[in-house]
Amino acid sequence: MSSPGLVRTIRIRSHRKTGGLGILTTALGDAGASIGEIHTVRIGHNYTLRDFNLLLDNDEHLRQVLESISVLRDSELVEVRETTRDVHLGGKVRTASRVDLSGLAVLAAATQPGVREIVQAIEDEPRQAEVFTTVQRTVAIVTDGSGLVGVGKVHPRAMLPVLEGMSAVLAQFAGLSSMRLALDVDSEDELIHTVAALAPSCGAILIDSVAAPRGPRAAAKLADRLKVPVYHDDADSPAIVGLAAVINACRRAHLDPASINIGQIGLGTAGGAIARLVMRHSGRAVLGDDVHPAAVSRHVSAGGEAASLDDIMAKCDVVVANTGHAGVIAPSKVREGQVIIALSEPRPEIEPYDAQLAGAAFAADGKAISTVAAVPGVLLGALAVKAAHISDQMRLAAAVTLAACAPDGDLVPTPLDPGVHAAVAAAVARAALAEGVAQARVAPEQLDATIFEEAIRDLRPLPLG
Amino acid sequence: MSSPGLVRTIRIRSHRKTGGLGILTTALGDAGASIGEIHTVRIGHNYTLRDFNLLLDNDEHLRQVLESISVLRDSELVEVRETTRDVHLGGKVRTASRVDLSGLAVLAAATQPGVREIVQAIEDEPRQAEVFTTVQRTVAIVTDGSGLVGVGKVHPRAMLPVLEGMSAVLAQFAGLSSMRLALDVDSEDELIHTVAALAPSCGAILIDSVAAPRGPRAAAKLADRLKVPVYHDDADSPAIVGLAAVINACRRAHLDPASINIGQIGLGTAGGAIARLVMRHSGRAVLGDDVHPAAVSRHVSAGGEAASLDDIMAKCDVVVANTGHAGVIAPSKVREGQVIIALSEPRPEIEPYDAQLAGAAFAADGKAISTVAAVPGVLLGALAVKAAHISDQMRLAAAVTLAACAPDGDLVPTPLDPGVHAAVAAAVARAALAEGVAQARVAPEQLDATIFEEAIRDLRPLPLG
Repeated sequence: MSSPGLVRTIRIRSHRKTGGLGILTTALGDAGASIGEIHTVRIGHNYTLRDFNLLLDNDEHLRQVLESISVLRDSELVEVRETTRDVHLGGKVRTASRVDLSGLAVLAAATQPGVREIVQAIEDEPRQAEVFTTVQRTVAIVTDGSGLVGVGKVHPRAMLPVLEGMSAVLAQFAGLSSMRLALDVDSEDELIHTVAALAPSCGAILIDSVAAPRGPRAAAKLADRLKVPVYHDDADSPAIVGLAAVINACRRAHLDPASINIGQIGLGTAGGAIARLVMRHSGRAVLGDDVHPAAVSRHVSAGGEAASLDDIMAKCDVVVANTGHAGVIAPSKVREGQVIIALSEPRPEIEPYDAQLAGAAFAADGKAISTVAAVPGVLLGALAVKAAHISDQMRLAAAVTLAACAPDGDLVPTPLDPGVHAAVAAAVARAALAEGVAQARVAPEQLDATIFEEAIRDLRPLPLG
Repeated sequence: MSSPGLVRTIRIRSHRKTGGLGILTTALGDAGASIGEIHTVRIGHNYTLRDFNLLLDNDEHLRQVLESISVLRDSELVEVRETTRDVHLGGKVRTASRVDLSGLAVLAAATQPGVREIVQAIEDEPRQAEVFTTVQRTVAIVTDGSGLVGVGKVHPRAMLPVLEGMSAVLAQFAGLSSMRLALDVDSEDELIHTVAALAPSCGAILIDSVAAPRGPRAAAKLADRLKVPVYHDDADSPAIVGLAAVINACRRAHLDPASINIGQIGLGTAGGAIARLVMRHSGRAVLGDDVHPAAVSRHVSAGGEAASLDDIMAKCDVVVANTGHAGVIAPSKVREGQVIIALSEPRPEIEPYDAQLAGAAFAADGKAISTVAAVPGVLLGALAVKAAHISDQMRLAAAVTLAACAPDGDLVPTPLDPGVHAAVAAAVARAALAEGVAQARVAPEQLDATIFEEAIRDLRPLPLG
């Protein structure tokens, strides 16, 4: 596993002087560290103690960064903390009781014998489960560990921290509960069979890190069979967030997506899904390239056009890249005025700075485009109206809303802005309703963002019809 | 579904006078209502407003209770509240994030790209999952809806309130997380296959409300195959709590379990499990009876002795009954000085009052014996030392500890006493360690109740070795 993306916190003691922090952060930046939060721990008589949260490529990168500090005259390293390990200790999520069981009457109502009254109510009318249990706010997060982005195949249990990360995101940003299911299955059929067996336990399913072609195929078959929202994170998240980025990049470069050429380099699960959703938005064929002929065929079947990387760079006004390979776009190929969104992690196909130097009107990489922005709102919106599946209209509504929520100059909003998820949920729910995908009978005016804000913040029930 | 066990809250406005509450509660008691919490809502100038939490047999019983109030001169009914529905609205549990994702550094550490460092750590050494994820505190609560006690077969989704009740109990009383899995499966093989597939996601499995013979067989096969604790709630909970009750009843009646005759009437999943554990404790054959010859055969295979109900009543010093049928023990059959524990719900095989009137030294019914007292501590203890299965030694340790925790005069402690679960967990963990069932290398002195109290109250990590 190369370049896992280390998160570290380094504590530095600096001599107090004007411009001291500037010298220090310049040194860190020159060493290629991506600086997150800076926390001032103490201001002493003649020194300042600060914690810097850094995102680094790998241990070698960390070594280089520490070396760049060691040569500074006025700063010294106090300690390096393994932030990622600290965050994970004991796990990232937990189950909490929503009722206080410390009285006998509530205990009798919540368990035997009282609970049988609710069992009977649901047995008589299955919809009552949505009122009296948490099922319609519960997502089954499923993987078989076969295709973790940037890593590949891992043991199911090694996927648990990824699933807990998603679980924490859904809990904090959408007020959703979840089950983390790292499955020990050997085939697509077994995966589908297992998920179908546990479907009564959840309102939606999220397929995470399942390698192609198993992942996309299983997601499609499950959606067809179960009539519940099946979110395929490896495809849906990049597609929705990618389209939002394209919309805002075009806006910024004064381009109209419906009358320009858009190219997609890399047509894997993520790239293929972005191209498909961009085509649904623009109504025009996307020019696509991939080293695998099968991926290009799928793209053409979906209405795309095959083209070489050189062709795409020469013809397209907007180029999106998801190849998994750093540096495959040479600056010499960049066209004047082009928009380039190079998404591979940890290093993009072309560095935004180099692209702009080569004449691009606008360029961005994956660091500025968090795919976590899409999933909480889309699932909350789909669950709220009991969507029978996640449709392209719902994906488009999510992308357009994300684009609109981005602060001026940004391509997509940060997932840390809580208003974003309520806005996306409302747009997705309304799109499902308008299209007839919703199984809940609810009036559109009951689906404004305020309702969803309260549902997220206070876990208030949604109007499920 | 007869007699579901209604929990209702009735609000009564009474004229203030000396002895007023006595008259009211006497009337409620005479009508057969089991009175839980009484909450004084308001004391007015000349009246008192009180809420009474009542446990009732069914709607007809509620009607009778309300009638008994209507004839009282100084009290009037203000309202009847559907307590069970209120407790269930929106579901009883939720997923909560244990990390605050509101900063970018923590978000990057908890999700992509930081999480890959933890994925790699677990891929390199699977045990790291117990440190960096919540898996070793996570229980998969599994059912197929085939055998809910007192009800029978229901749709899997109708089982969700039962599973959420168990989930809330494990969260509040043991600090454990859980996944609620109501499975849509048609056979024992499919049940086993599905649970085995999701086993990497949890540290223990709880089998709930699966009809015999599928339930006991699936629990045994899963325990054998997965090498994790598999708790079979329909058998283990009544066995552990039942033995605790027998131990305390004997103590009270000055009987030594090792030198008396004990009988078990009803050898279904619960009754059979009680008889088996009682035999492990006493070292003597239990006399058993059941209407199903297969159940009697199983009992004999397990070391028990077959006997008729009349024989059991005539020969045994202690009689336990789990027949599911009210009133099958006629008072005329009760022997002078006998101990009778009649567990069927909602009405026992013989009312304790009637049994004592007929000469029993001591008699109790299921109301005083909450089976919820066993499961939180047993699972927490088994998880803490990574027990490879739940052994009889661990069950015996739990029963003996429960018996010791009961207040003087009670057969078993209430599950609402938080000290009970820590004590049971410590005893179970130590028993697993002594027997060599524990896979964690931890010193016995690290397993005192205080450690478990902190683990439950503050979710402090356990010494997993």
